[in-house]
Amino acid sequence: MLKEEIQHLIDLKTKPLGALGLLEKIALKIGLVQQKNHLELVNPHLIVFASDHGIAQSGVSAYPAEVTPQMVINFLNNGAAINVFCNQNEIDLTIVDAGVNYNFEDYSVLKNCKIAKSTKNFLYEPAMNAEELQQCFDHSKKIVDEIAQNGTNIIGFGEMGIGNTSSASMIIHYLTQLPLEQCVGRGTGLNDEQLQNKINILTQAKENQGEINDPKQILATFGGFEVAQMTGAMLAAYEHNMLLMIDGYIASAAILVASKLKPEILKNAIFCHQSDEIGHRYLLNYFNEEPILKINLRVGEGTGCALAYPIIKSAVNFFNDMASFESAGVSNKETEVEC
Amino acid sequence: MLKEEIQHLIDLKTKPLGALGLLEKIALKIGLVQQKNHLELVNPHLIVFASDHGIAQSGVSAYPAEVTPQMVINFLNNGAAINVFCNQNEIDLTIVDAGVNYNFEDYSVLKNCKIAKSTKNFLYEPAMNAEELQQCFDHSKKIVDEIAQNGTNIIGFGEMGIGNTSSASMIIHYLTQLPLEQCVGRGTGLNDEQLQNKINILTQAKENQGEINDPKQILATFGGFEVAQMTGAMLAAYEHNMLLMIDGYIASAAILVASKLKPEILKNAIFCHQSDEIGHRYLLNYFNEEPILKINLRVGEGTGCALAYPIIKSAVNFFNDMASFESAGVSNKETEVEC
Repeated sequence: MLKEEIQHLIDLKTKPLGALGLLEKIALKIGLVQQKNHLELVNPHLIVFASDHGIAQSGVSAYPAEVTPQMVINFLNNGAAINVFCNQNEIDLTIVDAGVNYNFEDYSVLKNCKIAKSTKNFLYEPAMNAEELQQCFDHSKKIVDEIAQNGTNIIGFGEMGIGNTSSASMIIHYLTQLPLEQCVGRGTGLNDEQLQNKINILTQAKENQGEINDPKQILATFGGFEVAQMTGAMLAAYEHNMLLMIDGYIASAAILVASKLKPEILKNAIFCHQSDEIGHRYLLNYFNEEPILKINLRVGEGTGCALAYPIIKSAVNFFNDMASFESAGVSNKETEVEC
Repeated sequence: MLKEEIQHLIDLKTKPLGALGLLEKIALKIGLVQQKNHLELVNPHLIVFASDHGIAQSGVSAYPAEVTPQMVINFLNNGAAINVFCNQNEIDLTIVDAGVNYNFEDYSVLKNCKIAKSTKNFLYEPAMNAEELQQCFDHSKKIVDEIAQNGTNIIGFGEMGIGNTSSASMIIHYLTQLPLEQCVGRGTGLNDEQLQNKINILTQAKENQGEINDPKQILATFGGFEVAQMTGAMLAAYEHNMLLMIDGYIASAAILVASKLKPEILKNAIFCHQSDEIGHRYLLNYFNEEPILKINLRVGEGTGCALAYPIIKSAVNFFNDMASFESAGVSNKETEVEC
């Protein structure tokens, strides 16, 4: 179906023209992806990628690195925010150890895709090499291919990794040319002094790593393993024509890399929230995308996706189930003006 | 429980301090209302009040007045936006004929609380008299008391009434002293010329009605029956200590009147969305309230409440179900700083 045909179906619903706001844009987007008169969301799934970061050793985060494995265990024990919201909204959850500095016990929802126990510290050397990056892409493609076998047509991506807003900041800075200071935020809660220290460290990292233009090389240089696996997962999900729920700052860095490799992927991307992290607003403007939620979240884990999912569902439902002016016998201003 | 005790429980959850943003404020608000360690939302209910407006005869709306009964029939036939969203989120729906210019057949979800077939045109005379206003309050109290018998502890309010943004504009202007032009918006979709005409008519109405200070008299003067019944329903729901889901511009005018009669009612009010109607932003600032959704809705019907309900539920669920730093064995920055 053409964009105009889908828009026409939306405009005939019993409501003032455009009055469902962003819901109408989401319905249009889903209509263009699914090319059907009856839209559907099947077996929603969320993958949380976790990994440790060499840069965390340079003091860029308010929390110590051991919080990464502790929070993974919290995910596995159903105690984190993402568990609560996925349970509420019936979203299946997979946790991926992309490179955490811990040996986890076996859990059915945990996938072992560990590349190493941490990336290297990009202040001094690239976070990973080209082979490790390829491993990240291979691992995450396999996971997404498996999920696709359940018929899943909408997927979200979350992350856990102390230090990963620093990775995201560098990726976004290198790929968009937004000034570095505008890409660097408070992460999980830095104070003014700690924030300035983070900016100084990342500025130094930039000087040390020099100019890089290739998206894959930028991703390998600044990591982390969870960002790389998320990027690979997004590319794989796009191959299955899934709708991609994009979470906050880290996930937006991943879709940014993915969009440099496959620009048309953005057609399938639904931006779920605007993070409290300062750079996220700039990045959403860069994509020219309006997020669903603006409620000052900065948890990560994919929480923005899980919280926004019912709103996406509402967009599908109004498109499928609302009466038209004609079927309901309601006078339509627009029709009258034309007659 | 004191505010500090509830906030402390929120701060101990496994997430960076304050990182769930607005969800934390909603959980705090519900905690203060319910005074329990385990919050709950029971049998959510939404009432849509419908009525016709004398002022509609003066050409303030983009749609003809007959759309009011047509849309009520659409509600009764399950075809409107509010039906779709209430069905999705398992919210019970009651439709109230507060004064529609039509004789409806019997439906189980329709309550006949018709005061008259329309308010009078407030350009020339008060929309209703004091006795009719009291009837509005009596009717809606009875409906809410009935709903309370099901254990409902969260209730939303919607409306349908061609011309009712004009009523809301006048009420908000009189009660907040915001300049009239800032209170008057495009409603269901006026163009520039029509908007200027609406402003001119409402300016003339103000001159004709003169100064009024009493909130009830302001409500009676500008109507409509659905706004008055909604105001009464909010006051009645507060008496049952229900959480009040506040929709867009019209519902905010109703809670404004209610808050002038019973200031503490605002403790129970959850503002569900920021309407695309220009005056709503000013009014939310006046209340110093942050809305859950900012997605440019301007449907009315209570749609903002129904769409925001899953987010309110998420606030309750994180409060009830997330692990604490201690129970999950996760390092807490804040704890470490204090130790």
